[in-house]
Amino acid sequence: MSATDQANYQELRSRAMELSLLGSIESVLGWDERVMLPELGAPYRAEQMTMLAGKIHQSWTDPRMGELIESLAESELANDPESDSGATIRELKKDYDRRKKLPEALVKELTRLSVLGQQAWQKARETNNWNQFSPFLAQIVEKKREEAQAIGYEECPYDALLDEYEPGEKTSQVAAVLAGLKEDLVPFIQQIADSGKQTPVEILSRYYPAAVQESFGKEAANAIGFDFQRGRLDETAHPFCSGMGPNDCRITTRYNPNFFNEAFFGILHEAGHGLYDQGLRADEYGLPLGSAVSLGIHESQSRMWENFVGRSLAFWKHFYPAAQLAFPEALGNVKLESFYFAINAVEPSLIRVEADEATYNLHILVRFELEQALINDGLSVADLPQAWNSKYESYLGLTPPSDTLGVLQDIHWSGGAIGYFTTYSLGNLYAAQFFEQADREIGPLQEQFAAGVFQPLKEWLQTKIHQQGRRYSAAQLVEKVTGKPLSHQALMRHLHTKLDPLYDLN
Amino acid sequence: MSATDQANYQELRSRAMELSLLGSIESVLGWDERVMLPELGAPYRAEQMTMLAGKIHQSWTDPRMGELIESLAESELANDPESDSGATIRELKKDYDRRKKLPEALVKELTRLSVLGQQAWQKARETNNWNQFSPFLAQIVEKKREEAQAIGYEECPYDALLDEYEPGEKTSQVAAVLAGLKEDLVPFIQQIADSGKQTPVEILSRYYPAAVQESFGKEAANAIGFDFQRGRLDETAHPFCSGMGPNDCRITTRYNPNFFNEAFFGILHEAGHGLYDQGLRADEYGLPLGSAVSLGIHESQSRMWENFVGRSLAFWKHFYPAAQLAFPEALGNVKLESFYFAINAVEPSLIRVEADEATYNLHILVRFELEQALINDGLSVADLPQAWNSKYESYLGLTPPSDTLGVLQDIHWSGGAIGYFTTYSLGNLYAAQFFEQADREIGPLQEQFAAGVFQPLKEWLQTKIHQQGRRYSAAQLVEKVTGKPLSHQALMRHLHTKLDPLYDLN
Repeated sequence: MSATDQANYQELRSRAMELSLLGSIESVLGWDERVMLPELGAPYRAEQMTMLAGKIHQSWTDPRMGELIESLAESELANDPESDSGATIRELKKDYDRRKKLPEALVKELTRLSVLGQQAWQKARETNNWNQFSPFLAQIVEKKREEAQAIGYEECPYDALLDEYEPGEKTSQVAAVLAGLKEDLVPFIQQIADSGKQTPVEILSRYYPAAVQESFGKEAANAIGFDFQRGRLDETAHPFCSGMGPNDCRITTRYNPNFFNEAFFGILHEAGHGLYDQGLRADEYGLPLGSAVSLGIHESQSRMWENFVGRSLAFWKHFYPAAQLAFPEALGNVKLESFYFAINAVEPSLIRVEADEATYNLHILVRFELEQALINDGLSVADLPQAWNSKYESYLGLTPPSDTLGVLQDIHWSGGAIGYFTTYSLGNLYAAQFFEQADREIGPLQEQFAAGVFQPLKEWLQTKIHQQGRRYSAAQLVEKVTGKPLSHQALMRHLHTKLDPLYDLN
Repeated sequence: MSATDQANYQELRSRAMELSLLGSIESVLGWDERVMLPELGAPYRAEQMTMLAGKIHQSWTDPRMGELIESLAESELANDPESDSGATIRELKKDYDRRKKLPEALVKELTRLSVLGQQAWQKARETNNWNQFSPFLAQIVEKKREEAQAIGYEECPYDALLDEYEPGEKTSQVAAVLAGLKEDLVPFIQQIADSGKQTPVEILSRYYPAAVQESFGKEAANAIGFDFQRGRLDETAHPFCSGMGPNDCRITTRYNPNFFNEAFFGILHEAGHGLYDQGLRADEYGLPLGSAVSLGIHESQSRMWENFVGRSLAFWKHFYPAAQLAFPEALGNVKLESFYFAINAVEPSLIRVEADEATYNLHILVRFELEQALINDGLSVADLPQAWNSKYESYLGLTPPSDTLGVLQDIHWSGGAIGYFTTYSLGNLYAAQFFEQADREIGPLQEQFAAGVFQPLKEWLQTKIHQQGRRYSAAQLVEKVTGKPLSHQALMRHLHTKLDPLYDLN
C-alpha cells in the first residue's frame, strides 16, 4: 500500500478521533443537562450545545474530510471491508455521507430544539400539560421531516430517520419482523389474561426505602460486572446510560419507594448498556471499531441483563437472601417463588418503562406506527394525543387517563429522537437470539447465575459483540454470532419457557 | 462613528461571546472533573480539556481578532475608556495581547498538566505522599516559568503570573500592602496569644451530622440571596465556586461531621462568590462588562459574606435559634455568646482554609513568598516541603507533622494556579474597605443582619461592584466605591472591633 494512503489514513483517524473527543464533550454537557443543570440554566446550555454541534458539523463536512474519505475508499486499505482499515473507512464514509447531506443550520436548530424541548417536556409531564410541550414537538417533527428529505430514501421518509439509530435497517423490514412477533404475541398475551391466574404483584408496591434501593442496585450492577471505577450511577427523571470516554460511562435511574421494579430493573438495564460501553475497544475508542454498531444491538445488551438475567429464577436464587436482608419489611415473609412470579407477571399497562417482557413490545408497536404516521403520512402533532390513546385502546385495551400517563411519558421525541423506539423491540429480539447462543456455547447459564457467576456471559458478550465495534452491520453480526438471521422465534421461545409454567398454560 | 467601526465592534462582540461559550464549556468539564468524574476517567478528560483549550487559543489568536482589536482600539468607540464600548475594547485587547504571547503548545501542555496534576495531588494528599505529586508540580512550575517569560514583565517574572489573577497589580505593590498588614497583625496576634484567654472552641468539634449541615448551610446560603434556581451546591474534596452560564453557578463544599466551621463557613464563602457571579450583567455575560474584574475583588465578596456577615454577632442573633434546633446535641446547652466566641477564636493553625480571620493572612504570606521564590529565584520543587515547613515555623510557630497538613494541603498549584493565593489576602483587605463603606451608606448593617435582612447589602454590592464588570480596574473600583486607595487599615479596624472585647484587650 502506498505511503500516501498510509498518511491519509492516519490523518483521517486523527480527525475522527478529534471529532469523537468533541462528541464526548457533547455527551458530558448532555448528561449534565439531564442530571445536574439548575432549573434556569437550560437556555444557555442550549447555546453551548448548539455551538458545539455546529463546530462538529463543520469539522465533519470540512472538504479535507471528503478528500481523504473519497481517496481512501478507492485505496487498497479499503479492499477488505471486514479488515480494520476497511471497516474504519467504510463506516466513516457512511457517517460523512450522512453528515454532508445535512445543512448546518438544520443540525444546529435540531440541537437547540432538543435541549429546549426536553426542558419543556419535563415540565409538561410533571404538570400534565400537553400544550406546554406540543409547540416544541411540532417544530421538532417539522425539522425531522426536513432531515428525512435532506438525507433521502428509497421507500419512505421514515427510513432516513431509522437509519440513524439502526444503520442499514428499512422500515419495511422492521415492520415485517414486528408483524411476525405481533401475530404470535397477541394471542399469547390473551391466553395469559384468560388463565385467570392471580399474581402476587402487590408485594412489589410495598415500601422499599430509596437509599436501600440505591445500595442494593449498585451491588447488583457491580456483581454483573459494571465497573464503578470507570462509571457512576446517579438519579434522573428519565433514566439513561451515557458513555463519555473509554473510562467514563454513566448510568442513571429513578427511585420510587413504593415500587421495587423501577429502580432495580432500571439499574440492571442501564448497567447492561454500560457493559457494552465499557467493553468497547479502548484503543479504538470513538472510531468505528471502538463504537457500538446500532441502538438495537445496544438495547439487546440492556434487555439481556435486565430480563434474561435479572428476571430469571436462577438470578434470584443467588440474590434473594440479600434482597430479604435489605428489605426485611417488604420481603421478609415473601417466598422466592412469589417474588419471582411478581417480577414476571404479565399485564397490559400504560407506561412503557414499567411494562413486562411480553406486553412491552406492544408499547413499541404503538410508537413505531405513530412515528411513521408523523413522518410519512403527515399526522399533525395536534392530533397525536388522540391517536396515542386510540392505539393504546386497540393494542393494550387501556385508555390513558392523562397525557402524563400517555403521550407525554417518554423523553425521546422531546430530544429529537424519532426512529429510536423500534430499536427497543429489535433489542428484545436480538437479546433472545444471542442469549440462546451463549447458553449453547458457555452454558448452562442458569447454573452460573444461581451461583452468582456472571463473568462468563459478560466475557462472551464482550468478545462476540462489544469488541467487534462496527466491523459488521447489526444484521451481519447476528448471523455471525448466532448462525441465523434475526427473527422473533427465540423471543417467543424464551417467553413460553418462562411464562407457560407460571400461568399453567398448555 | 463609522459604519465599519460599528460592524467591527459587533463582530468582535460576537467572537468574544463565542469564546465565552467555549470557556463556559471548559468550566462544565472542570466542575465535572472535580465533582463527578469516575476515578479512571482523568486521562481522557485531560484530552478533552486540552483539545478545547487549544481551540479556544486558536480562536483568540485568529488574525481576524487582531485586526478587529487593533482597528477598534484606534476608533471613536474606544475614546472614552469608561464607556461600554471603550471598556469592552480595552479589556478584550488586554486579553488578546496576553493570549497572543502564549504559544499554543504551552497553553495545551499547561491544561493537560493541570488535569493530571490535580488528580495526582488528590491521591498524594490522601496518602501523604509528596513524591507522587512532586514530578507533576516540577513540570508545572517549569511551564509557569516559561509562561512568565513569554508574557514578559518589568520588575520580576512573578508579575506576569500575578497579572492573570489580579490584572494591573505588581508584586512590589502587593508586597508593600502585605508588609503593612504584617507589621500590625503579628503583634496583634501575639497580644491575643498573651491574653491567656481560654476559648470555647471545643463546641465546634462536637457531632454535627453531615446531612443536617447540608440543609442548614443551604438555608443560610438561600437567606443571604444565593439563588438555587440558578445554581447548585455539591460535595467535593476542595471547595470552589464555578460560574458556567448566566443562570448556572455552582458552589461546592465538604462536610466534616466533627467540625462545624468547615462546611458552614465554606458554604457562606462560596455563596459569596456565587452572589458575585449571579449578580453579573446577564446581557453582557462572558464579555468584559459581564465578567468579574479580578480574583481579589471576587474574594472580597466571599470573605465578606463568610466573615464580615457570617461571623458577626448580629448574624447569629438571627440564626442561632435555628442552629440550636438543627444541632440540639451539639448546641442545645451552648450560649450564643460562647458560640460566637468559638467561631471567632484566634489561634495559629496548620490549615489555611480552617484558619481564623486574623492568622489567615499569615498563611497567604507563606505562599506568596514561596511562589516568588519558585518563579523569581529558582527555588527547586524538591526543596519546597522544607521551605514550607520552615516558613510555618517562623510565621505561625508550628511545624507541619506531615505534608498532607503542610505543602500538600491546597489544590491550587496542582491546577497550574501560581499567583492566585495573594488574591485571598487582597480580598480580605478589599472586603473590609467595602464593608465599612456599605455600613456608612446603607447601615447600620448589624441591625439588619440581626433581623435576618441581607437584601440591602446584597443589592449594594450588586450595584457598586458586580454590575460594573471590568469597566474599572480593581484599584480604580476600590477608589470609586470607597473614596480611598486600598490599605490594610479597614481590616485592622474590623479585627480590633471584633477581637478586642473577646480577648479583653486594651
